[in-house]
Amino acid sequence: MNFKFSKRISGVKASAIREILKMMNDPEIISFGGGNPASETFPITKLKEISDDIFNNQANTILEYGITEGDIDLKKAALKFLSRHETVLKDYDEVMVTSGSQQIMDFMSKCLCDEGDIVICENPSFLGALNAFKSNGAKLVGIDMEDDGINLVKLEEALQMPQKPKFIYLIPNFQNPTGITTSLKKRQAIYALAKKYQVMILEDNPYGDLRFRNDPIPSIKSLDDEGLVVYAASLSKIIAPGMRVAIMIGHRDLLAKCTVAKQTNDVHTNAWAQRVMARFLNEVDMDEHLNKLQAVYSRKCNLMLKEMDRHFSKDCKWTIPDGGMFIWVTLPERLNMPSFVKKAIEHKVAVVPGNAFYDDDNKHCQSFRMNFSMPSDEQIIKGVAILGALIND
Amino acid sequence: MNFKFSKRISGVKASAIREILKMMNDPEIISFGGGNPASETFPITKLKEISDDIFNNQANTILEYGITEGDIDLKKAALKFLSRHETVLKDYDEVMVTSGSQQIMDFMSKCLCDEGDIVICENPSFLGALNAFKSNGAKLVGIDMEDDGINLVKLEEALQMPQKPKFIYLIPNFQNPTGITTSLKKRQAIYALAKKYQVMILEDNPYGDLRFRNDPIPSIKSLDDEGLVVYAASLSKIIAPGMRVAIMIGHRDLLAKCTVAKQTNDVHTNAWAQRVMARFLNEVDMDEHLNKLQAVYSRKCNLMLKEMDRHFSKDCKWTIPDGGMFIWVTLPERLNMPSFVKKAIEHKVAVVPGNAFYDDDNKHCQSFRMNFSMPSDEQIIKGVAILGALIND
Repeated sequence: MNFKFSKRISGVKASAIREILKMMNDPEIISFGGGNPASETFPITKLKEISDDIFNNQANTILEYGITEGDIDLKKAALKFLSRHETVLKDYDEVMVTSGSQQIMDFMSKCLCDEGDIVICENPSFLGALNAFKSNGAKLVGIDMEDDGINLVKLEEALQMPQKPKFIYLIPNFQNPTGITTSLKKRQAIYALAKKYQVMILEDNPYGDLRFRNDPIPSIKSLDDEGLVVYAASLSKIIAPGMRVAIMIGHRDLLAKCTVAKQTNDVHTNAWAQRVMARFLNEVDMDEHLNKLQAVYSRKCNLMLKEMDRHFSKDCKWTIPDGGMFIWVTLPERLNMPSFVKKAIEHKVAVVPGNAFYDDDNKHCQSFRMNFSMPSDEQIIKGVAILGALIND
Repeated sequence: MNFKFSKRISGVKASAIREILKMMNDPEIISFGGGNPASETFPITKLKEISDDIFNNQANTILEYGITEGDIDLKKAALKFLSRHETVLKDYDEVMVTSGSQQIMDFMSKCLCDEGDIVICENPSFLGALNAFKSNGAKLVGIDMEDDGINLVKLEEALQMPQKPKFIYLIPNFQNPTGITTSLKKRQAIYALAKKYQVMILEDNPYGDLRFRNDPIPSIKSLDDEGLVVYAASLSKIIAPGMRVAIMIGHRDLLAKCTVAKQTNDVHTNAWAQRVMARFLNEVDMDEHLNKLQAVYSRKCNLMLKEMDRHFSKDCKWTIPDGGMFIWVTLPERLNMPSFVKKAIEHKVAVVPGNAFYDDDNKHCQSFRMNFSMPSDEQIIKGVAILGALIND
């Protein structure tokens, strides 16, 4: 059989990260390549207690078909949690539970993009989102990142293109892969531009609650007074990713279409996971829970930064994230980044080559991404020393 | 904000069944409208026991990110289960775990269909599948059903169209909505035509293990020697639908693309559900488990048929299913089907108007679908009597 695949799916390459993750199965490899949260923070005991109680008292509700839009208790609990510091649900908005926020990227582009439509993204950005957009036929236009968020001049140029972009995809807090946080001033400016050109924003905030430095900054969604912003809130990084539960908030007309997309995709998110998450958000002191997580992430990040200071040469540059899971390292021109990453793997340390996160991964790139949430302290100390030796080699 | 949605999603209407399901929340309504399995068959105790053990002994494996293709133990256990009577995995095939078999319909059409490509389906057919195909831009060509499966002459005509169809979608066992089983002779003839015209088949088999009359018939997949058939095996109807776990088997080149589609959609299926299903298939005597299910389904189906014999007028016709969950009733021309269904709801009995399952729901239709797995015996007796009175009215 000779398969002729659709244009949209033919445009997506198997992920470069995936290939690296496969090597991570080698137990000798120290991986700074993953995007996994710190598994020592998983609240196993509480999750088990809730799960037990659900099986004892309402088993049929988790075994029978559920509603596509999601468990009503989870929607309420999540909204209460997400609204504790700012208003993310506006009068015209609806809420939907999705199977991870990856699904939000898929549904948003499936419902808004015809073949060849443009999506604006940060450059570099989260590969999973970029691939979701491409898999629905979208063309990416990347806007270069600066220390405080995307370049506004280039953003406005992109918004003025004859072909009007369908939406702007942003990760304002501790961005993946750069760790950069978009400043309040830039958030306001980006929203003003979106309003001026009537282009939607998809604000992805998987890491916002993993802040361990400086003060929180209002979300772009909280600035929205026109129904232009869709907000993606993941529970993967603050509870557990294997559950595949996220929350989508956006204009009710758009969410009605996304409900159709979900109905034809997985009907509804795993019913057990939704019930467990609802109860967890309702029963656990979330501030206390998050404090514990932030302490772990802070310790690991600071350890990695300290070791980098010690071992990496002065002509390397890297970001100092205020939270999240990633540090973005830029090598001096004397080093070839792809060769460096290859050599690192030969020396049993995995990092992700930065070009994997570009709108076009053939672009020249001197950077790579390091993850500090998954490795142990010992692995951080040993792995950074190995990378340092290779940089100075 | 004025939204301009994609062509593909604009082509999908909100499901007619969904609207009926909403009314089912009225506790006074007797619903023959659903597609839910018999909840009294859910193996709650065993599922809880397995879940407990997983939390006690391997909690991190269900909380951390998993592999897109699915839990390796589940793939093995499912293959063993699905291969107990026939060969469904061929040399060129791969296996993938999906979040319900609805996702197989989505991924298959996403990976194979460009805007305007043709998918052949039985007419009538499962609405969720038809909507999934449409949501990826496919055009449907429905082939009329006969008592033993689709009309072969019309199928060959469709395969000879200038625009080559991308695949044929079939539910050979106790079809949704008609309850019809495709004969072995027709399965062989359909496969021969698919081979002659080199068009793929998507064989959806959610109900195959719910057979309670006559002997099993080999799947089309088991006849496949060229990689033309994709097999969709759901665990929703034989264990529990809220888990959202199904198994996709097909040519490895196609499954590689579907893996990309899944990676950009939900990354992987809920990890807990996959582990629980793997253990269930490995630890439970599945023949014994299925015997129990079949006894329940048989009793309910026969009760509904007996009551229909008693109450429905002689000029009504209906199918006698060998398994599954549905009976297809055709009203005499003296009655207007849509008005009848409306009147039935007013009298607190819900059935689904048959045109909802057509490739074009504007077509004239005298039939409606009745589900016998969800209602209780008492509801079956009472609801059929009400419908009978309306028919004779």
